[in-house]
Formats: sequence, C-alpha cells, structure tokens
Amino acid sequence: MSADYRKMWESLGVDLEAHDRLMGVLPPTYGNVYLSQENRPAGMEYFDFVISEVHGQRIVELQEHKAGGGKVVGAFCVFVPEEVVRAAGGICVGLCSGVEIGRTQAEKVLPRSICPLIKSFMGFKLSRVCPYFESCDMVVGETTCDGKKKAFEILNDYIPVHVMEIPQMRRDKDFALWRSEVRDFALAMEELTGNKITPESLLRSIKEVNGKRRALLRLSELRKNSPAPISGKDSLLIEQIAMYDDVERFTAQVNELCEELETRVKEGSGVQKPGDMRIIVSGTPMAVPNWKVPHIIETSGAVIVAEELCTGLRYFENTVAEDGGSLEQMIDAIARRYLEINCACFSPNRQRMERIVQLARDYRADGVIHVSLAFCDPYLIEANRVEKTLKENGIPVLTLETDYGQEDTGQLKTRIEAFLEMLGCGKKR
Amino acid sequence: MSADYRKMWESLGVDLEAHDRLMGVLPPTYGNVYLSQENRPAGMEYFDFVISEVHGQRIVELQEHKAGGGKVVGAFCVFVPEEVVRAAGGICVGLCSGVEIGRTQAEKVLPRSICPLIKSFMGFKLSRVCPYFESCDMVVGETTCDGKKKAFEILNDYIPVHVMEIPQMRRDKDFALWRSEVRDFALAMEELTGNKITPESLLRSIKEVNGKRRALLRLSELRKNSPAPISGKDSLLIEQIAMYDDVERFTAQVNELCEELETRVKEGSGVQKPGDMRIIVSGTPMAVPNWKVPHIIETSGAVIVAEELCTGLRYFENTVAEDGGSLEQMIDAIARRYLEINCACFSPNRQRMERIVQLARDYRADGVIHVSLAFCDPYLIEANRVEKTLKENGIPVLTLETDYGQEDTGQLKTRIEAFLEMLGCGKKR
Ligand code: SF4
Ligand code: SF4
Ligand code: SF4
Ligand code: SF4
Repeated sequence: MSADYRKMWESLGVDLEAHDRLMGVLPPTYGNVYLSQENRPAGMEYFDFVISEVHGQRIVELQEHKAGGGKVVGAFCVFVPEEVVRAAGGICVGLCSGVEIGRTQAEKVLPRSICPLIKSFMGFKLSRVCPYFESCDMVVGETTCDGKKKAFEILNDYIPVHVMEIPQMRRDKDFALWRSEVRDFALAMEELTGNKITPESLLRSIKEVNGKRRALLRLSELRKNSPAPISGKDSLLIEQIAMYDDVERFTAQVNELCEELETRVKEGSGVQKPGDMRIIVSGTPMAVPNWKVPHIIETSGAVIVAEELCTGLRYFENTVAEDGGSLEQMIDAIARRYLEINCACFSPNRQRMERIVQLARDYRADGVIHVSLAFCDPYLIEANRVEKTLKENGIPVLTLETDYGQEDTGQLKTRIEAFLEMLGCGKKR
Repeated sequence: MSADYRKMWESLGVDLEAHDRLMGVLPPTYGNVYLSQENRPAGMEYFDFVISEVHGQRIVELQEHKAGGGKVVGAFCVFVPEEVVRAAGGICVGLCSGVEIGRTQAEKVLPRSICPLIKSFMGFKLSRVCPYFESCDMVVGETTCDGKKKAFEILNDYIPVHVMEIPQMRRDKDFALWRSEVRDFALAMEELTGNKITPESLLRSIKEVNGKRRALLRLSELRKNSPAPISGKDSLLIEQIAMYDDVERFTAQVNELCEELETRVKEGSGVQKPGDMRIIVSGTPMAVPNWKVPHIIETSGAVIVAEELCTGLRYFENTVAEDGGSLEQMIDAIARRYLEINCACFSPNRQRMERIVQLARDYRADGVIHVSLAFCDPYLIEANRVEKTLKENGIPVLTLETDYGQEDTGQLKTRIEAFLEMLGCGKKR
C-alpha cells in the first residue's frame, strides 16, 4: 500500500509495526480462501477491491468526512441503529474483531475465559492496530451479553462509549425500555455531531439503510435456487463489508451483482456442484477475516446457502417501516425493527428456533451447522435449544464451538466431513 | 441419618445412591473446616445442628408445609423477593449449588465453559440429588447473567421456571421495568399458591424478612470490632443458612448469638489473634459447602471481617421500607430495595466500587480479597474495576479466580499467604 496510507495511519495514532504484522497475514489468507474459488461471479471484483483497500480507500473517506467536521461512530453489534447515526450526519462503522491481535494486551484487562470477539476488540484498541477504530469519535456499546456489557466499562477508559440497554425479553414493557433507549441514542448522536435529526433526515436514512438491507435480501433470495449461484464465502464477505462500506455505493454494487446472479439462475449455472450438500450456517457473528468454518464447509462437498448470523440474515431480513410521520413515529418504527433481531441474548428465544426451521425449508437446506465462538454463553447454551428444535423437525444439525486460532482446523474438518457424508447417505437412500 | 429420612428422600424422587455420595463428603469437610476452630461462640451450636440436619429436619418441615397445601419455591439469586413468596403463603428456599455434583449430566445439556454454580444446579436437578430441589414446586429464575438466563430455558424442561427480568442499569426506566416484574411475580405467586396477597400479609412478610436481615446486619456490625468476636467462616455459614432456614427461628437464633458476641466485645475477647490481618472478601456468592477460600484465609493469619457477597452483605445490608400503605406502594418499596443490590450484572456499577471502599474503612480492613468463580464474566471483568478503585484509594487488593475443585488449593494458599505477608509488612512499617 502507498506511502500516503502509512502517513495517514501514523497520524491516526496507529502502531505501524503491529499494523504491518496484521496486514501481512490478511492477503495470503484472502488469496487462499477467496481467490482460489471456481466460477466466481464477475461482480465480486468490487468486493475483492474493497478488501485489497481495507485500510486504505475507506479510511481516506472517513478522514475526509472528519475533516469536514463529520463524526465516525463504531459499533460491535447489529442492534446499534445505523439509521440514527446517519440521520445526524454521522458515519457508522462495524468494527470487525475477527482476528486474534493484541491478545496479550487484552488479557491485561480482561479474563482469559472470554469470547475471542471481545478479546479481539479490546486487543485492537489497546494495541492501536485498526485505523477504523482509531478513526472513531465514539463507540456505541450494548448490553447484549455479559462479556461485552462489562468490557465496555473498561473500553470507556480509552475511548468514549455510549451504551444502549438491550432488554432481555420482548414483551410490551421491554419494547418501552428499548424504544426509550433508541430515543436517548438519537439525543446522544445529536450532541456528538452537533446536528439536529429531522423527520426528513431520519426518513432519508431509513430509506438508505433499507435499500442496503433489501439489496442483501435480494442476494440472499437468489441463493434459494439450486444450483446456488454464489458461494457462501462470497456472500459472507459481502455481508461483512456491509458493516463499514459507503452505504450507497455498496447497495449499488450488491444490486449489480444480483443482476449477474439472476442471469446465472436463468441459465441454471452456479457454484454448487452435483452432489454438493446445501448447508445453513447459524450462530455467533463471523467478523472479517474469520472465514475458517465456511471455508472448511465449502471445500468439503457443500455450499452454504444462508447465514443465520448477524453477519448474515439477522442483519438484513427485517427493514424499518417507511411510512414516515413524526420523528417519534419513526423512532418507534426503528425500535420495532431492531427488537425483531433474533439474538440469543433474548430469553426465551423461540422466535429464533422457528426462524431456523423456516429458513431450512425455504432455502432447501440439507442440514444446519451451528457455530458458536468459545466462551459465548448465550449461543453455546442456546445451541441446545437449536439442536432440540431441529431434531424435532427432522432437520439434521451439527453443533460446533471454535475460536480464532487455527489449531482446531483438522478436527473441525473431520467433523464437518462426517456430517456432510451422513447427509449424503440420507439423500441417496 | 434415620431410616425415616431415607424414605422421605425416596418419596421425593431423590437418587439415594448419588445422595449417599454427596452426604459422605459433607460431614468430614465440615469437621475439618468448622469444628476445628478455636474459641467458637456457643451460639454456633444451633447452626452446627442445622448443618448436621441439612437434608433432614428442614426437609421434614417443607414436606409438612406441602402436605397442608403449601408451596415451595426455589431461587438461585438474592434478587428473588422472598417477601412476595411468603405473603402468598409460600416458602422460598435458596438452592445452594456450592459443590460439584452431577457434572457429567450437566455437561450433556450445558457447555463446559460455564460457571460452576450453574453447572452445579443443573447437575443437582439432572441427577436428582438435592431434597430441597426435589421439594420445589417452581424455580424462580432471573436474567442476571447470560449463563443463568439461558440455562433456565433448559431447566424449564425439568421443572417449571418463572423468570424475572433484571434490568442492566439503574435509571428510572429500569426501575419501571423491574417494578413491573415484581408485580408480575406477585401475580405468579398468587396463581401458584392459590392465595391472594393482601396488604396485611405483605406487610407482615416484609417485617419478618426485614427482621432476618436486621439480625444479620447486627451480627455484621459486631465484626467491626477488634478483635473480631466471630470468624468469617462462622459468619458465612450463618449467611448461607439464612437462605433456606425457617425465617423466625433463624432470626431468633442469630439475635441470641449477637447477645453472646456483644458480651465478647465488651470483654475485648474474640477470635482474632494479635497480628491477624483483617480481610474483606468480595465477589461471587459462596454457596454451601463452598468454604474453600475463607478456610485458606483464616488458616493463614487473617480473620475475615465482612463478606461483600450475595451470601453476605448484599443479602442483608438493605431493608424494605415498612411504612406500609397500599399493595402497590409496598410492591414499590420492595422493588426499590432489591434494585439497590450491588450485583455485577449492572453496568456501570460504580455504586459497588464505592461500597467496597466504604466497607474497607468501616470494618477497618487491612485488605480486600476479590474472589470470582471461573467463567463468571460479570465478576471476572468487574474485578478490573474493583482493583482500580481500591488501588486509587490506597486499599490493598488481591484478585482470585477459582472453582469448586480442590486442585488449586495449594496455589491459592501461596498467593493468599504472600498477600497477607505483604499486608503485615506494610503495617509494621
Ligand atoms: S449475536 Fe447478538 S450481540 Fe452479537 S452482534 Fe448479533 S445481535 Fe449483537
Ligand atoms: S460472540 Fe457471544 S460472547 Fe462474544 S460478543 Fe457475541 S454474544 Fe458476546
Ligand atoms: S451475584 Fe448477582 S446474580 Fe449472583 S446471586 Fe448475587 S445478585 Fe444474584
Ligand atoms: S457466579 Fe457469575 S456466572 Fe455464575 S451464576 Fe453467579 S453471576 Fe452467573
């Protein structure tokens, strides 16, 4: 990458040496996991470019935004309403935390027995390795899980954190609490940016973000076809990039890709080979560059047809009502949409169970692979409910637990291959 | 224990063989940890008796209560308002979960990386080893931590669970949610017991439970004296028994003990030897028979003067306002009292930090030992804040992580001894 980028990173306070180490890992991994795929859609070129410029062009854009007085807000959860940030003239970036960096630093302030995602974001901040993080004026946290809830208290020592309280159930009184949190968040964003949120700016940003979600849903719907026109890995990449790319450019690119895929569908071509199993991946979010399990699945005789993940359907399956009205009515609509997210932080969470069964049917999946990050209590425990429900519905399921290391790759491959083989036998009979 | 007890256990569905194994462990541990102490107050005799009859006399009482149509409700957290259970004519028992039993069974439905308390209660239920648990008509769960919140969904497969939502912050809107949860809990208790809660029955039970809390606070206050008139181990035992013993009898016995201790204080006698350090233990609850860390501390040249634990001050430091009024006003008062509990589930939790500093001063402590159970994210992460605050206030602190096994005893002893020695040197200088 160019010398100008290095200067920019330096000015952001990024630790260049640590950053070099990080960037040294990414390109070879990407080549191995992504560029080796056969019959990739041409429309993936844009997303490959985004990754090749991951700490370059987009960071330049954020800096330009900041130079004009704009604010950048970081988030670690799909509960943070991007619509509100944008309506106040801010940019919302999902901070990825999909790689083990700065673990030693993180373990100075956090226990060892904590999910890799949390350890990663703390490590990123403490070792100043991520130009997105260093571009943020504020982080928006939430109380979804114990680990994040408590870690945000510590992160607040290093960067201002606004925490939104996510209720733990989904009754009317929980909605009231959550709605009030969205309202308070709008005030916090107005204060941070110095801009008033108007009914016009909010409606516009609702429509823009809905546009992004609809493009992703359009892509997802195409994958119901057999053969699947695009790989799960490519789809996941797009869903990951959705978290931080420019909204309008991204939306246009996804829609363009969808047109290409529609042609594929019409022609009956795609990436799914005869005999490939159709798999739904479900569980904890997979942040860039955590492509480990999808890569193993798709190199073991299967194609992933949907991600029941926050880097996946949970991010775009619901949109905000666009009937406008007053600011308060729109806040209401936003709160309502977000409370539909099927996160394991809710108890009980039957809605998620029913959704997975429905997805398995709609996407004509042969089986579901449930993947939890290590130490993630909500998903690790809910895996028990997922297994129970899927078995009751006659849908084969495999539950896995993994982290950001590569030590378990062999073991995962063995278990995934055995599962896929079992599915294949079931189909032949 | 008598043959009658065995019959009773059997009729409750207790697995007698597993139960024998459990009971085989308890008495020797108790003798070693408790009966070996010097200069114990005579008033401890009652509590020794309670432990010797732990699955005997009290279970008989519960059965008599049930034979008369009464209900028994189990709880795993001090957020469950005993006042409400009693006002509906029920008995509330804290289920202890302080020992590793039924781990293999528990790990069939729960991940391995989960706190021992949760693993223990699931193991107790699945291996049917606890006559208290088997006496319960209902368990009252809460959403304090991810592990419990999600485990209650599974426990509900084996016994009806009513879950109360605990808010994660302590603002007005959180109070509103919590108050509504207490209201709903009152309705649930009325439904379970078939009894109406009246202003009279609720006020009476508020006063009874306040009486219990005041007796415990009286005991605690006496420990501010030097020499401390009673050991930390004995105090912890009493605080543990508070969770399931008959309220009025227990209260009377604690008050009787306090009279004896008042005499000790007047005479300047006690259990604290010259040179003994005065320690506050803080952190996750210590359920019967989890006496490991207190035993190490008190056999290493220190006396524990207070427990900033839910089996300790968090259980009794606040009482419910007794000014009565309507049912709704009393529900309000109850909700208000419970939201003052300094659990690490709240974020931020500065109130707990300030409280620990205050306690260290009030109890003239030489240092604080913070003990978290393994895999307990809320307390393990909050330990960082505790350490920071105490250091800022010049109060020495040691943070430990442990579980229900005995493997780490030697290592804990080494670290505790080193800490106490450091305190001793600081004092001599
Ligand atoms: S899994 Fe839950 S906590 Fe994690 S990003 Fe999704 S909604 Fe947020
Ligand atoms: S993966 Fe689980 S533990 Fe980790 S941040 Fe997400 S919800 Fe929390
Ligand atoms: S530590 Fe928190 S969750 Fe545990 S018993 Fe105490 S209040 Fe309940
Ligand atoms: S010790 Fe911690 S993890 Fe265990 S039940 Fe209590 S709050 Fe939850």
